[in-house]
Amino acid sequence: MSEAAYVAVDWGTSSFRLWLVDRTGSVLGERRSHEGMMVAGKHGFAAVLQSHLEAVGAADGLPVVVCGMAGARQGWVEAGYVDTPAQLSSILKQAVAVPGQDRDIRILPGIAQRDPKAPDVMRGEETQLLGTLGMDAADDVLVCMPGTHSKWVRASGGTVERFATFMTGELFDVVSRETILSHAVAGADAAEDVDAFKSAVVAAFEAPAFAANRLFQVRSGQLLYGGKPSSARERISGTLIGLELAAGLTGEAPKAGITLVASGRLQMLYQLAFDTVSVPVRSIGAEDAVRRGLAMAARSIWNV
Amino acid sequence: MSEAAYVAVDWGTSSFRLWLVDRTGSVLGERRSHEGMMVAGKHGFAAVLQSHLEAVGAADGLPVVVCGMAGARQGWVEAGYVDTPAQLSSILKQAVAVPGQDRDIRILPGIAQRDPKAPDVMRGEETQLLGTLGMDAADDVLVCMPGTHSKWVRASGGTVERFATFMTGELFDVVSRETILSHAVAGADAAEDVDAFKSAVVAAFEAPAFAANRLFQVRSGQLLYGGKPSSARERISGTLIGLELAAGLTGEAPKAGITLVASGRLQMLYQLAFDTVSVPVRSIGAEDAVRRGLAMAARSIWNV
Repeated sequence: MSEAAYVAVDWGTSSFRLWLVDRTGSVLGERRSHEGMMVAGKHGFAAVLQSHLEAVGAADGLPVVVCGMAGARQGWVEAGYVDTPAQLSSILKQAVAVPGQDRDIRILPGIAQRDPKAPDVMRGEETQLLGTLGMDAADDVLVCMPGTHSKWVRASGGTVERFATFMTGELFDVVSRETILSHAVAGADAAEDVDAFKSAVVAAFEAPAFAANRLFQVRSGQLLYGGKPSSARERISGTLIGLELAAGLTGEAPKAGITLVASGRLQMLYQLAFDTVSVPVRSIGAEDAVRRGLAMAARSIWNV
Repeated sequence: MSEAAYVAVDWGTSSFRLWLVDRTGSVLGERRSHEGMMVAGKHGFAAVLQSHLEAVGAADGLPVVVCGMAGARQGWVEAGYVDTPAQLSSILKQAVAVPGQDRDIRILPGIAQRDPKAPDVMRGEETQLLGTLGMDAADDVLVCMPGTHSKWVRASGGTVERFATFMTGELFDVVSRETILSHAVAGADAAEDVDAFKSAVVAAFEAPAFAANRLFQVRSGQLLYGGKPSSARERISGTLIGLELAAGLTGEAPKAGITLVASGRLQMLYQLAFDTVSVPVRSIGAEDAVRRGLAMAARSIWNV
């Protein structure tokens, strides 16, 4: 087994992922848990990190590079923001060291769009972007990064020009769990209903103003015509993703095309949504992207 | 004091309102409670109604006319639906008698739009519509009825042609309470921020696809620029109402104009939203409308 060179951590609001990495970028050990910022804020960030470092057998002096909500004001140590237009390479230069630790721990900053008409922030996605685009990226690319708070980023030559966050994932979650639609999806199994999803995407994409009406129809349609809970779930999902695509794809087509950065079920759903509205995308795994971004940070900071 | 002629009840999902009414339509007694369908379903509809009848001193034989969710499948006695195109007068003919009661109790049916492409249902609003439009209404009117599930109704000559339900009120509720925006509105006082509301209405009305982005900006704007929790609330409200108006006002302008049926804070907000997008409406109180509709039903059924 080769020797570990650094530890990479993606520390989100509700999830924690850690990789023990060697000099070539190979993963020697891995940890996943639900100790995101919310949980770690109570138990202590240092203690949570230490337990996972021990679990993968990280040597005492091994440095740790962290991205995500651990750098938020309500996180571990505030890592601030790089402002748009933001060179992706500059997030490497503004990594913040966590004081009073036995090892060298750095947290990467987020990106802020200080435009009073379109204020926006990201934390964690900038590292995915770095891993996706590299530092010398193509001219005018559009990146779609689905999630609880989906990000759509317009970048050029390694610089984030503008971005917009959509609450799609969180809306899906509360609409399915906390509204009258919870009756429509209750007991849904994993069965997919591609037709229901696609028709909901098209409807919301073509007439976004009717999104709150399309959502109600998930319930009234089931009331009048029946239908499976899993189909209802796909309709909600398709409506919200179609709404997001209608906005994200507004404006001039990006010269260097569209990149989808996603994994698992989200990758599948967004790929299907883009296909449905006949927009080609190239797809990159979200986890690969963040690990590659953290590797670039580690190389830049410690030359490992 | 004049003699009571009947009792009128508006029995919603989460609210119960009862009026003791004389032959001229004057209200002799009134009750309000949170014993809507959800609560009454547990305690028993008959028991809940009886306690309020006793509280207003309703005589034993006095008849009761009910509209709303008491007539749903999961309500007291299912009162079915009149299908669109639905003559408002026909809801009076299809009132359902509650069996096994000491007094004559009738529940009015709802209206269903059995269109697989736009399935929709209403219960309670048909009675408000009856009270608003009467049975010989003008040609081609658009009625906006804000609420947990706002209804937009296109009617002509006393017939409901089409309608659409928007989950605006429920979305406002879950978005404010259950998402990241709950941090933005936490501790909001009653202070109004008319400018924040109006600019959110305009933004969502002009670019409805960006609704889920505008919502996130409520949080990111506060993070980057500060701002009061009450202003954040107005922005959420304006975004969702602007989105609803963008859809509701799609299509040809109604020949006989637009009527807003609302009360209290909702009346104020929707009136301001319509003013903001320069669309004139005439406003009718929602409670007056439902009482008038129930009075028309009582007159038709019992000739009182």
